[in-house]
Amino acid sequence: MLLGSVEAGGTKFVCAVGDEHWTIKDVIRFPTTTPEETLSRVVDYFKSFPDLAAISLSSFGPIELRQDSPHYGWITTTGKPGWQNTDFLGIMKKHFKLPIYWTTDVNGSAYGEYVLAQKQHEAVDSLVYYTVGTGIGAGVVVNGKLQGDNGNPEMGHVYVKKHPADAEFAGICPFHGDCLEGLASGPTFEARTGKKGPDIPLTDPVWDIMAYYVAQAAVNATLTQRPDKVVFGGGVISEPFLKKVRHEFVDLINGYVELPASPERYLVMPLAAHNGSATIGNFALAQQMLSK
Amino acid sequence: MLLGSVEAGGTKFVCAVGDEHWTIKDVIRFPTTTPEETLSRVVDYFKSFPDLAAISLSSFGPIELRQDSPHYGWITTTGKPGWQNTDFLGIMKKHFKLPIYWTTDVNGSAYGEYVLAQKQHEAVDSLVYYTVGTGIGAGVVVNGKLQGDNGNPEMGHVYVKKHPADAEFAGICPFHGDCLEGLASGPTFEARTGKKGPDIPLTDPVWDIMAYYVAQAAVNATLTQRPDKVVFGGGVISEPFLKKVRHEFVDLINGYVELPASPERYLVMPLAAHNGSATIGNFALAQQMLSK
Repeated sequence: MLLGSVEAGGTKFVCAVGDEHWTIKDVIRFPTTTPEETLSRVVDYFKSFPDLAAISLSSFGPIELRQDSPHYGWITTTGKPGWQNTDFLGIMKKHFKLPIYWTTDVNGSAYGEYVLAQKQHEAVDSLVYYTVGTGIGAGVVVNGKLQGDNGNPEMGHVYVKKHPADAEFAGICPFHGDCLEGLASGPTFEARTGKKGPDIPLTDPVWDIMAYYVAQAAVNATLTQRPDKVVFGGGVISEPFLKKVRHEFVDLINGYVELPASPERYLVMPLAAHNGSATIGNFALAQQMLSK
Repeated sequence: MLLGSVEAGGTKFVCAVGDEHWTIKDVIRFPTTTPEETLSRVVDYFKSFPDLAAISLSSFGPIELRQDSPHYGWITTTGKPGWQNTDFLGIMKKHFKLPIYWTTDVNGSAYGEYVLAQKQHEAVDSLVYYTVGTGIGAGVVVNGKLQGDNGNPEMGHVYVKKHPADAEFAGICPFHGDCLEGLASGPTFEARTGKKGPDIPLTDPVWDIMAYYVAQAAVNATLTQRPDKVVFGGGVISEPFLKKVRHEFVDLINGYVELPASPERYLVMPLAAHNGSATIGNFALAQQMLSK
Protein backbone atom coordinates (compact mmCIF):
# COMPACT_ATOMS: atom_id res chain seq x y z
CA MET A 1 0.00 0.00 0.00
CA LEU A 2 1.35 3.44 -0.94
CA LEU A 3 0.61 6.51 1.17
CA GLY A 4 1.36 10.14 0.30
CA SER A 5 2.62 12.86 2.64
CA VAL A 6 2.92 16.60 2.08
CA GLU A 7 4.59 18.68 4.77
CA ALA A 8 3.85 22.16 3.50
CA GLY A 9 6.07 24.71 5.19
CA GLY A 10 6.39 28.41 4.57
CA THR A 11 9.98 27.90 3.39
CA LYS A 12 9.94 24.46 1.82
CA PHE A 13 7.65 21.59 0.89
CA VAL A 14 8.50 17.95 1.62
CA CYS A 15 6.52 15.41 -0.42
CA ALA A 16 6.99 11.73 0.33
CA VAL A 17 5.55 8.35 -0.51
CA GLY A 18 5.65 5.57 2.05
CA ASP A 19 4.33 2.10 2.69
CA GLU A 20 1.98 0.77 5.36
CA HIS A 21 4.91 0.47 7.78
CA TRP A 22 5.55 4.23 7.29
CA THR A 23 8.84 3.50 5.56
CA ILE A 24 9.73 6.29 3.13
CA LYS A 25 9.92 4.91 -0.43
CA ASP A 26 10.54 8.22 -2.13
CA VAL A 27 10.90 11.83 -1.06
CA ILE A 28 11.31 15.21 -2.74
CA ARG A 29 11.96 18.68 -1.28
CA PHE A 30 11.49 22.01 -3.01
CA PRO A 31 11.23 25.65 -1.96
CA THR A 32 7.86 27.29 -1.33
CA THR A 33 7.44 29.80 -4.18
CA THR A 34 4.05 30.85 -5.61
CA PRO A 35 1.01 28.69 -4.84
CA GLU A 36 0.58 27.91 -8.58
CA GLU A 37 4.15 26.72 -9.08
CA THR A 38 4.47 24.98 -5.73
CA LEU A 39 1.17 23.10 -5.84
CA SER A 40 1.83 22.10 -9.48
CA ARG A 41 5.01 20.43 -8.29
CA VAL A 42 3.04 18.61 -5.60
CA VAL A 43 0.46 17.40 -8.14
CA ASP A 44 3.11 16.36 -10.68
CA TYR A 45 5.02 14.46 -8.01
CA PHE A 46 2.10 12.34 -6.85
CA LYS A 47 0.87 11.77 -10.45
CA SER A 48 3.97 9.60 -10.89
CA PHE A 49 2.61 7.20 -8.24
CA PRO A 50 -0.60 5.83 -9.78
CA ASP A 51 -0.96 3.24 -6.98
CA LEU A 52 -1.31 5.81 -4.22
CA ALA A 53 -4.12 4.87 -1.79
CA ALA A 54 -4.43 8.10 0.24
CA ILE A 55 -2.66 11.38 0.95
CA SER A 56 -2.30 13.52 4.06
CA LEU A 57 -1.49 17.23 3.93
CA SER A 58 0.09 19.01 6.91
CA SER A 59 0.21 22.67 6.07
CA PHE A 60 1.53 25.95 7.37
CA GLY A 61 -1.29 28.33 8.19
CA PRO A 62 -3.47 29.67 9.51
CA ILE A 63 -5.65 27.08 7.81
CA GLU A 64 -9.38 26.36 7.93
CA LEU A 65 -10.04 23.10 9.79
CA ARG A 66 -13.77 23.37 10.39
CA GLN A 67 -15.36 20.89 8.02
CA ASP A 68 -18.60 22.87 7.88
CA SER A 69 -16.83 26.01 6.67
CA PRO A 70 -17.02 26.95 2.96
CA HIS A 71 -13.27 27.58 3.25
CA TYR A 72 -12.45 24.15 4.68
CA GLY A 73 -9.11 23.07 3.28
CA TRP A 74 -7.84 26.59 2.64
CA ILE A 75 -4.70 28.34 3.76
CA THR A 76 -6.43 31.51 4.99
CA THR A 77 -4.93 34.69 6.52
CA THR A 78 -1.26 33.73 6.24
CA GLY A 79 1.42 36.42 6.13
CA LYS A 80 3.18 34.47 3.35
CA PRO A 81 2.79 36.69 0.24
CA GLY A 82 0.51 35.26 -2.45
CA TRP A 83 -0.75 32.37 -0.31
CA GLN A 84 -3.77 34.04 1.31
CA ASN A 85 -6.99 32.12 0.61
CA THR A 86 -5.37 29.24 -1.25
CA ASP A 87 -7.70 26.26 -1.63
CA PHE A 88 -4.93 23.71 -1.11
CA LEU A 89 -7.20 20.75 -0.33
CA GLY A 90 -9.57 21.65 -3.18
CA ILE A 91 -6.76 21.69 -5.74
CA MET A 92 -5.52 18.32 -4.52
CA LYS A 93 -9.01 16.83 -4.60
CA LYS A 94 -9.47 18.04 -8.18
CA HIS A 95 -6.40 16.05 -9.27
CA PHE A 96 -6.66 12.98 -7.04
CA LYS A 97 -9.81 10.93 -6.45
CA LEU A 98 -8.42 9.64 -3.17
CA PRO A 99 -9.10 10.13 0.54
CA ILE A 100 -7.08 13.24 1.47
CA TYR A 101 -6.48 14.27 5.09
CA TRP A 102 -6.06 17.94 5.99
CA THR A 103 -4.38 19.33 9.09
CA THR A 104 -1.73 21.76 10.32
CA ASP A 105 2.01 21.14 9.97
CA VAL A 106 2.43 20.93 13.72
CA ASN A 107 -0.56 18.58 14.08
CA GLY A 108 1.14 16.30 11.55
CA SER A 109 4.28 16.34 13.70
CA ALA A 110 2.32 15.79 16.91
CA TYR A 111 0.55 12.81 15.41
CA GLY A 112 3.81 11.38 14.07
CA GLU A 113 5.36 11.55 17.51
CA TYR A 114 2.25 9.94 18.99
CA VAL A 115 2.29 6.94 16.62
CA LEU A 116 6.06 6.51 17.01
CA ALA A 117 5.66 6.47 20.80
CA GLN A 118 2.92 3.84 20.42
CA LYS A 119 5.17 1.80 18.14
CA GLN A 120 7.92 1.91 20.76
CA HIS A 121 5.42 0.81 23.42
CA GLU A 122 5.76 4.00 25.45
CA ALA A 123 2.79 4.56 27.78
CA VAL A 124 1.74 7.64 25.82
CA ASP A 125 -1.96 8.28 25.19
CA SER A 126 -1.66 12.04 25.05
CA LEU A 127 1.10 14.43 24.13
CA VAL A 128 1.73 18.04 23.27
CA TYR A 129 4.19 18.84 20.47
CA TYR A 130 5.64 22.35 20.34
CA THR A 131 7.63 23.61 17.41
CA VAL A 132 9.95 26.47 18.34
CA GLY A 133 11.41 27.95 15.18
CA THR A 134 10.38 30.87 12.96
CA GLY A 135 7.21 30.86 15.04
CA ILE A 136 5.87 28.80 17.92
CA GLY A 137 3.04 26.36 17.35
CA ALA A 138 1.55 23.39 19.13
CA GLY A 139 -0.25 20.20 18.21
CA VAL A 140 -2.18 18.27 20.84
CA VAL A 141 -3.08 14.58 20.87
CA VAL A 142 -5.47 13.43 23.62
CA ASN A 143 -6.35 9.74 23.84
CA GLY A 144 -4.97 9.26 20.35
CA LYS A 145 -7.04 12.04 18.79
CA LEU A 146 -5.81 15.39 17.43
CA GLN A 147 -7.52 18.26 19.26
CA GLY A 148 -9.11 21.29 17.70
CA ASP A 149 -12.32 20.74 15.75
CA ASN A 150 -13.13 24.45 16.02
CA GLY A 151 -9.62 25.36 14.92
CA ASN A 152 -6.11 24.26 15.73
CA PRO A 153 -4.49 25.22 19.03
CA GLU A 154 -2.55 28.48 18.86
CA MET A 155 -0.67 27.94 22.08
CA GLY A 156 2.32 29.90 20.80
CA HIS A 157 0.41 33.13 21.30
CA VAL A 158 -0.43 32.96 25.00
CA TYR A 159 1.07 35.57 27.30
CA VAL A 160 3.88 34.61 29.67
CA LYS A 161 5.76 35.91 32.68
CA LYS A 162 8.68 38.11 31.69
CA HIS A 163 12.22 37.07 32.56
CA PRO A 164 13.66 39.77 34.86
CA ALA A 165 16.68 40.23 32.57
CA ASP A 166 14.39 40.65 29.55
CA ALA A 167 12.19 43.44 30.90
CA GLU A 168 13.15 45.94 28.20
CA PHE A 169 12.47 43.64 25.24
CA ALA A 170 9.06 44.42 23.70
CA GLY A 171 8.74 41.18 21.74
CA ILE A 172 8.28 40.78 18.00
CA CYS A 173 4.82 39.25 17.49
CA PRO A 174 2.97 41.54 15.06
CA PHE A 175 -0.30 40.70 16.84
CA HIS A 176 0.70 40.56 20.49
CA GLY A 177 4.20 41.95 20.98
CA ASP A 178 5.42 39.96 23.95
CA CYS A 179 3.37 36.77 23.75
CA LEU A 180 5.30 33.48 23.89
CA GLU A 181 6.09 33.55 20.15
CA GLY A 182 6.98 37.24 20.39
CA LEU A 183 9.52 36.46 23.11
CA ALA A 184 10.89 33.01 22.28
CA SER A 185 10.68 32.29 18.54
CA GLY A 186 13.95 31.99 16.61
CA PRO A 187 13.97 35.54 15.18
CA THR A 188 13.96 37.00 18.72
CA PHE A 189 17.69 36.24 18.95
CA GLU A 190 18.44 38.72 16.20
CA ALA A 191 15.92 41.24 17.57
CA ARG A 192 17.64 41.13 20.96
CA THR A 193 21.29 40.78 20.04
CA GLY A 194 21.74 41.48 16.33
CA LYS A 195 23.02 37.92 15.96
CA LYS A 196 21.24 34.78 14.83
CA GLY A 197 20.62 31.97 17.36
CA PRO A 198 23.01 29.45 15.78
CA ASP A 199 25.81 32.05 16.07
CA ILE A 200 25.30 32.56 19.80
CA PRO A 201 26.98 30.09 22.17
CA LEU A 202 24.72 28.26 24.59
CA THR A 203 26.62 29.83 27.49
CA ASP A 204 25.25 33.26 26.53
CA PRO A 205 22.57 34.45 29.03
CA VAL A 206 20.10 35.00 26.17
CA TRP A 207 19.69 31.22 26.02
CA ASP A 208 18.64 31.24 29.68
CA ILE A 209 15.99 33.81 28.85
CA MET A 210 14.77 31.62 26.00
CA ALA A 211 14.72 28.55 28.25
CA TYR A 212 12.60 30.43 30.79
CA TYR A 213 9.92 31.07 28.17
CA VAL A 214 10.02 27.64 26.54
CA ALA A 215 9.71 26.16 30.05
CA GLN A 216 6.51 28.18 30.52
CA ALA A 217 5.16 26.53 27.36
CA ALA A 218 5.85 23.20 29.04
CA VAL A 219 4.17 24.41 32.25
CA ASN A 220 1.09 25.46 30.28
CA ALA A 221 0.81 22.09 28.54
CA THR A 222 1.37 20.24 31.82
CA LEU A 223 -1.32 22.15 33.71
CA THR A 224 -3.79 22.20 30.83
CA GLN A 225 -3.69 18.88 28.97
CA ARG A 226 -1.86 16.85 31.64
CA PRO A 227 -0.09 14.99 28.80
CA ASP A 228 2.13 11.92 29.08
CA LYS A 229 4.96 13.88 27.48
CA VAL A 230 5.80 17.20 25.86
CA VAL A 231 7.87 17.03 22.67
CA PHE A 232 9.87 19.98 21.37
CA GLY A 233 10.92 20.34 17.74
CA GLY A 234 11.96 23.20 15.51
CA GLY A 235 15.17 25.09 14.79
CA VAL A 236 15.66 26.57 18.26
CA ILE A 237 15.57 23.18 19.99
CA SER A 238 18.59 21.02 20.80
CA GLU A 239 19.25 18.54 23.59
CA PRO A 240 21.65 20.89 25.45
CA PHE A 241 19.05 23.69 25.26
CA LEU A 242 16.30 21.33 26.49
CA LYS A 243 18.48 20.64 29.51
CA LYS A 244 18.18 24.34 30.41
CA VAL A 245 14.44 24.21 29.72
CA ARG A 246 13.98 21.27 32.11
CA HIS A 247 15.84 23.13 34.83
CA GLU A 248 13.59 26.20 34.49
CA PHE A 249 10.51 23.98 34.21
CA VAL A 250 11.19 22.21 37.50
CA ASP A 251 11.66 25.60 39.20
CA LEU A 252 8.53 27.11 37.69
CA ILE A 253 6.09 24.25 38.30
CA ASN A 254 7.54 23.72 41.79
CA GLY A 255 6.10 20.26 42.38
CA TYR A 256 2.50 21.41 42.03
CA VAL A 257 1.37 18.37 40.03
CA GLU A 258 2.78 14.89 39.82
CA LEU A 259 4.59 14.40 36.50
CA PRO A 260 4.07 11.15 34.60
CA ALA A 261 7.85 10.77 34.19
CA SER A 262 11.16 12.34 35.17
CA PRO A 263 11.82 15.73 33.50
CA GLU A 264 14.38 14.00 31.23
CA ARG A 265 11.76 11.61 29.93
CA TYR A 266 8.88 14.10 30.05
CA LEU A 267 10.31 17.08 28.12
CA VAL A 268 11.92 15.49 25.09
CA MET A 269 13.23 15.86 21.56
CA PRO A 270 11.22 14.17 18.75
CA LEU A 271 11.60 10.42 18.27
CA ALA A 272 11.66 10.95 14.48
CA ALA A 273 15.11 11.91 13.24
CA HIS A 274 15.81 14.83 10.89
CA ASN A 275 12.50 16.64 11.45
CA GLY A 276 10.68 13.63 10.09
CA SER A 277 7.76 13.68 12.55
CA ALA A 278 5.25 15.24 10.16
CA THR A 279 5.95 12.76 7.35
CA ILE A 280 5.38 9.81 9.70
CA GLY A 281 2.29 11.53 11.05
CA ASN A 282 0.95 12.02 7.53
CA PHE A 283 1.50 8.37 6.63
CA ALA A 284 -0.39 7.32 9.79
CA LEU A 285 -3.21 9.81 9.18
CA ALA A 286 -3.56 8.75 5.54
CA GLN A 287 -3.62 5.10 6.58
CA GLN A 288 -6.21 5.83 9.25
CA MET A 289 -8.53 7.37 6.64
CA LEU A 290 -8.45 4.10 4.71
CA SER A 291 -9.23 1.97 7.74
CA LYS A 292 -12.38 4.02 8.48
CA MET B 1 -35.68 8.25 38.85
CA LEU B 2 -33.77 9.87 41.73
CA LEU B 3 -30.20 11.13 41.29
CA GLY B 4 -27.84 12.30 44.02
CA SER B 5 -25.41 15.23 43.87
CA VAL B 6 -22.63 16.22 46.25
CA GLU B 7 -20.82 19.49 45.62
CA ALA B 8 -18.00 19.19 48.13
CA GLY B 9 -16.37 22.55 48.72
CA GLY B 10 -13.64 23.51 51.14
CA THR B 11 -16.11 25.78 52.99
CA LYS B 12 -19.43 24.03 52.56
CA PHE B 13 -21.06 20.92 51.17
CA VAL B 14 -24.23 20.98 49.07
CA CYS B 15 -26.08 17.66 48.83
CA ALA B 16 -29.09 17.42 46.56
CA VAL B 17 -31.51 14.90 45.13
CA GLY B 18 -33.02 15.47 41.72
CA ASP B 19 -35.09 13.76 39.07
CA GLU B 20 -34.25 12.75 35.51
CA HIS B 21 -35.05 16.29 34.33
CA TRP B 22 -32.41 17.59 36.79
CA THR B 23 -35.08 19.28 38.87
CA ILE B 24 -33.95 19.58 42.49
CA LYS B 25 -36.34 17.63 44.75
CA ASP B 26 -34.43 18.22 47.96
CA VAL B 27 -31.26 20.02 48.99
CA ILE B 28 -29.19 20.46 52.14
CA ARG B 29 -26.16 22.64 52.86
CA PHE B 30 -23.74 22.31 55.76
CA PRO B 31 -20.26 23.60 56.62
CA THR B 32 -17.15 21.55 55.84
CA THR B 33 -15.80 20.50 59.25
CA THR B 34 -13.82 17.27 59.85
CA PRO B 35 -13.97 14.54 57.19
CA GLU B 36 -15.62 12.16 59.70
CA GLU B 37 -18.40 14.54 60.66
CA THR B 38 -18.93 15.97 57.18
CA LEU B 39 -18.99 12.68 55.31
CA SER B 40 -21.30 11.17 57.97
CA ARG B 41 -23.76 13.93 57.20
CA VAL B 42 -23.49 13.12 53.48
CA VAL B 43 -24.12 9.41 54.13
CA ASP B 44 -27.03 10.09 56.54
CA TYR B 45 -28.61 12.46 54.04
CA PHE B 46 -28.64 10.03 51.13
CA LYS B 47 -29.71 7.10 53.38
CA SER B 48 -33.06 8.87 53.64
CA PHE B 49 -33.59 8.38 49.88
CA PRO B 50 -33.74 4.60 49.45
CA ASP B 51 -34.81 4.94 45.80
CA LEU B 52 -31.63 6.70 44.70
CA ALA B 53 -30.33 5.32 41.38
CA ALA B 54 -26.87 6.91 41.21
CA ILE B 55 -24.74 9.61 42.84
CA SER B 56 -22.15 12.03 41.48
CA LEU B 57 -19.49 13.63 43.68
CA SER B 58 -17.79 16.89 42.63
CA SER B 59 -15.09 17.57 45.14
CA PHE B 60 -12.54 20.18 46.11
CA GLY B 61 -9.03 18.91 45.73
CA PRO B 62 -6.49 18.09 44.61
CA ILE B 63 -8.18 14.74 44.04
CA GLU B 64 -7.01 11.52 42.40
CA LEU B 65 -8.81 10.99 39.08
CA ARG B 66 -6.68 8.25 37.53
CA GLN B 67 -8.76 5.11 37.75
CA ASP B 68 -5.68 2.88 37.81
CA SER B 69 -4.29 4.61 40.91
CA PRO B 70 -4.63 2.92 44.32
CA HIS B 71 -5.73 6.35 45.57
CA TYR B 72 -8.49 6.78 42.98
CA GLY B 73 -11.37 8.59 44.63
CA TRP B 74 -9.24 10.27 47.30
CA ILE B 75 -8.86 13.90 48.24
CA THR B 76 -5.04 13.93 48.26
CA THR B 77 -2.61 16.79 49.04
CA THR B 78 -5.19 19.44 49.96
CA GLY B 79 -4.23 22.33 52.22
CA LYS B 80 -7.55 21.89 54.09
CA PRO B 81 -6.53 20.66 57.58
CA GLY B 82 -7.52 17.07 58.31
CA TRP B 83 -8.65 16.30 54.77
CA GLN B 84 -5.36 15.02 53.32
CA ASN B 85 -5.69 11.49 51.93
CA THR B 86 -9.42 11.16 52.53
CA ASP B 87 -10.95 8.23 50.63
CA PHE B 88 -14.16 10.09 49.84
CA LEU B 89 -15.32 7.78 47.04
CA GLY B 90 -14.40 4.66 49.02
CA ILE B 91 -16.49 5.75 52.03
CA MET B 92 -19.46 6.47 49.76
CA LYS B 93 -19.11 3.12 48.00
CA LYS B 94 -19.06 1.33 51.34
CA HIS B 95 -22.44 2.80 52.21
CA PHE B 96 -24.16 2.85 48.81
CA LYS B 97 -24.22 -0.04 46.34
CA LEU B 98 -24.86 2.34 43.47
CA PRO B 99 -22.95 3.74 40.50
CA ILE B 100 -21.00 6.71 41.91
CA TYR B 101 -19.26 9.26 39.67
CA TRP B 102 -16.14 11.04 40.90
CA THR B 103 -14.77 14.33 39.60
CA THR B 104 -13.58 17.79 40.64
CA ASP B 105 -15.92 20.55 41.79
CA VAL B 106 -15.09 22.68 38.79
CA ASN B 107 -15.53 19.74 36.40
CA GLY B 108 -19.01 19.30 37.85
CA SER B 109 -19.74 22.96 37.14
CA ALA B 110 -18.26 22.76 33.63
CA TYR B 111 -20.41 19.75 32.83
CA GLY B 112 -23.51 21.40 34.26
CA GLU B 113 -22.98 24.43 32.03
CA TYR B 114 -22.42 22.14 29.06
CA VAL B 115 -25.66 20.20 29.51
CA LEU B 116 -27.63 23.39 30.19
CA ALA B 117 -26.27 24.91 26.97
CA GLN B 118 -27.31 21.75 25.13
CA LYS B 119 -30.77 21.93 26.68
CA GLN B 120 -31.10 25.53 25.48
CA HIS B 121 -30.00 24.47 22.00
CA GLU B 122 -26.87 26.60 22.03
CA ALA B 123 -24.29 25.44 19.47
CA VAL B 124 -21.88 24.43 22.24
CA ASP B 125 -19.86 21.24 21.89
CA SER B 126 -16.93 22.43 23.96
CA LEU B 127 -16.51 24.92 26.74
CA VAL B 128 -14.09 25.98 29.42
CA TYR B 129 -15.46 26.87 32.87
CA TYR B 130 -13.26 28.96 35.16
CA THR B 131 -14.07 29.51 38.79
CA VAL B 132 -12.46 32.66 40.18
CA GLY B 133 -12.93 32.72 43.94
CA THR B 134 -10.76 31.59 46.84
CA GLY B 135 -8.65 29.96 44.13
CA ILE B 136 -8.80 29.71 40.36
CA GLY B 137 -9.71 26.42 38.73
CA ALA B 138 -10.91 25.26 35.34
CA GLY B 139 -13.02 22.46 33.93
CA VAL B 140 -12.89 21.63 30.25
CA VAL B 141 -15.52 19.89 28.12
CA VAL B 142 -14.49 18.94 24.57
CA ASN B 143 -17.08 17.33 22.31
CA GLY B 144 -19.22 16.62 25.33
CA LYS B 145 -16.47 14.91 27.31
CA LEU B 146 -14.69 16.16 30.44
CA GLN B 147 -10.95 16.43 29.82
CA GLY B 148 -8.20 15.15 32.07
CA ASP B 149 -7.79 11.38 32.37
CA ASN B 150 -4.25 11.86 33.70
CA GLY B 151 -5.48 14.46 36.15
CA ASN B 152 -7.74 17.47 36.08
CA PRO B 153 -6.64 20.68 34.39
CA GLU B 154 -4.89 23.10 36.75
CA MET B 155 -5.18 26.09 34.47
CA GLY B 156 -5.35 28.46 37.42
CA HIS B 157 -1.62 27.99 38.01
CA VAL B 158 -0.19 29.08 34.64
CA TYR B 159 2.02 32.15 34.55
CA VAL B 160 0.69 35.38 33.05
CA LYS B 161 1.88 38.76 31.86
CA LYS B 162 2.04 41.29 34.69
CA HIS B 163 -0.16 44.38 34.58
CA PRO B 164 2.14 47.43 34.52
CA ALA B 165 0.41 48.93 37.57
CA ASP B 166 0.83 45.66 39.48
CA ALA B 167 4.59 45.26 39.06
CA GLU B 168 5.35 45.40 42.78
CA PHE B 169 2.81 42.75 43.82
CA ALA B 170 4.53 39.40 44.37
CA GLY B 171 1.36 37.30 44.26
CA ILE B 172 0.04 34.96 46.94
CA CYS B 173 0.21 31.44 45.51
CA PRO B 174 2.19 29.34 48.02
CA PHE B 175 3.55 27.27 45.11
CA HIS B 176 4.15 29.86 42.39
CA GLY B 177 3.84 33.37 43.82
CA ASP B 178 2.60 35.30 40.81
CA CYS B 179 0.81 32.64 38.76
CA LEU B 180 -2.76 33.42 37.64
CA GLU B 181 -4.25 32.27 40.96
CA GLY B 182 -1.53 34.11 42.86
CA LEU B 183 -2.47 37.34 41.09
CA ALA B 184 -6.21 37.13 40.50
CA SER B 185 -7.93 34.93 43.12
CA GLY B 186 -10.29 36.62 45.56
CA PRO B 187 -7.83 36.89 48.48
CA THR B 188 -5.47 39.01 46.33
CA PHE B 189 -7.74 42.01 46.95
CA GLU B 190 -6.90 41.95 50.64
CA ALA B 191 -3.23 41.20 49.97
CA ARG B 192 -3.02 44.27 47.71
CA THR B 193 -5.27 46.75 49.46
CA GLY B 194 -6.08 45.47 52.96
CA LYS B 195 -9.74 45.41 51.92
CA LYS B 196 -11.89 42.53 50.71
CA GLY B 197 -13.12 42.52 47.10
CA PRO B 198 -16.82 43.05 47.90
CA ASP B 199 -15.85 46.20 49.84
CA ILE B 200 -13.99 47.74 46.89
CA PRO B 201 -16.05 49.66 44.33
CA LEU B 202 -15.75 48.45 40.73
CA THR B 203 -14.40 51.88 39.76
CA ASP B 204 -11.23 51.20 41.78
CA PRO B 205 -8.23 50.53 39.49
CA VAL B 206 -7.56 47.22 41.28
CA TRP B 207 -10.55 45.79 39.41
CA ASP B 208 -8.87 46.72 36.11
CA ILE B 209 -5.79 44.81 37.20
CA MET B 210 -7.97 41.80 38.05
CA ALA B 211 -9.76 42.03 34.69
CA TYR B 212 -6.41 42.04 32.89
CA TYR B 213 -5.49 38.71 34.47
CA VAL B 214 -8.89 37.05 34.14
CA ALA B 215 -8.86 38.14 30.47
CA GLN B 216 -5.59 36.25 30.06
CA ALA B 217 -7.33 33.13 31.38
CA ALA B 218 -9.87 33.64 28.59
CA VAL B 219 -7.06 34.15 26.06
CA ASN B 220 -5.41 30.90 27.18
CA ALA B 221 -8.63 28.90 26.84
CA THR B 222 -9.37 30.47 23.45
CA LEU B 223 -5.94 29.69 22.00
CA THR B 224 -5.69 26.25 23.57
CA GLN B 225 -9.08 24.52 23.48
CA ARG B 226 -10.75 26.80 20.91
CA PRO B 227 -14.01 26.37 22.86
CA ASP B 228 -17.49 27.50 21.84
CA LYS B 229 -17.66 29.60 24.98
CA VAL B 230 -15.83 30.40 28.20
CA VAL B 231 -17.95 30.50 31.37
CA PHE B 232 -16.84 32.33 34.52
CA GLY B 233 -18.20 31.52 37.95
CA GLY B 234 -17.01 32.06 41.51
CA GLY B 235 -17.15 34.86 44.04
CA VAL B 236 -15.03 37.38 42.11
CA ILE B 237 -17.24 37.24 39.01
CA SER B 238 -20.16 39.56 38.26
CA GLU B 239 -21.63 40.81 35.01
CA PRO B 240 -20.17 44.34 35.43
CA PHE B 241 -16.74 42.85 36.13
CA LEU B 242 -17.03 40.54 33.10
CA LYS B 243 -17.63 43.64 30.99
CA LYS B 244 -14.15 44.83 31.99
CA VAL B 245 -12.75 41.36 31.29
CA ARG B 246 -14.21 41.36 27.77
CA HIS B 247 -12.65 44.74 27.07
CA GLU B 248 -9.19 43.53 28.12
CA PHE B 249 -9.69 40.24 26.28
CA VAL B 250 -10.43 41.93 22.96
CA ASP B 251 -7.30 44.08 23.38
CA LEU B 252 -5.08 41.14 24.35
CA ILE B 253 -6.15 38.66 21.68
CA ASN B 254 -6.13 41.42 19.06
CA GLY B 255 -8.14 39.57 16.42
CA TYR B 256 -5.65 36.73 16.11
CA VAL B 257 -8.28 34.00 15.87
CA GLU B 258 -11.90 34.12 14.80
CA LEU B 259 -14.18 33.86 17.83
CA PRO B 260 -17.25 31.61 17.60
CA ALA B 261 -19.44 34.44 18.94
CA SER B 262 -19.34 38.10 19.99
CA PRO B 263 -17.37 38.74 23.21
CA GLU B 264 -20.71 39.30 25.02
CA ARG B 265 -21.89 35.83 24.08
CA TYR B 266 -18.47 34.18 24.28
CA LEU B 267 -17.28 35.21 27.76
CA VAL B 268 -20.29 34.64 29.94
CA MET B 269 -21.74 34.08 33.40
CA PRO B 270 -23.12 30.60 34.20
CA LEU B 271 -26.54 29.66 32.86
CA ALA B 272 -27.34 28.01 36.21
CA ALA B 273 -28.53 30.51 38.78
CA HIS B 274 -27.18 30.75 42.35
CA ASN B 275 -23.96 28.76 41.72
CA GLY B 276 -26.08 25.76 40.77
CA SER B 277 -23.92 24.56 37.86
CA ALA B 278 -22.23 21.73 39.77
CA THR B 279 -25.51 20.27 41.05
CA ILE B 280 -26.95 20.16 37.52
CA GLY B 281 -23.65 18.70 36.28
CA ASN B 282 -23.77 16.02 38.95
CA PHE B 283 -27.33 15.03 38.06
CA ALA B 284 -26.33 14.73 34.39
CA LEU B 285 -23.15 12.77 35.19
CA ALA B 286 -25.03 10.40 37.51
CA GLN B 287 -27.70 9.88 34.85
CA GLN B 288 -25.03 9.24 32.22
CA MET B 289 -23.53 6.45 34.35
CA LEU B 290 -26.89 4.68 34.35
CA SER B 291 -27.32 4.94 30.58
CA LYS B 292 -23.95 3.24 29.98
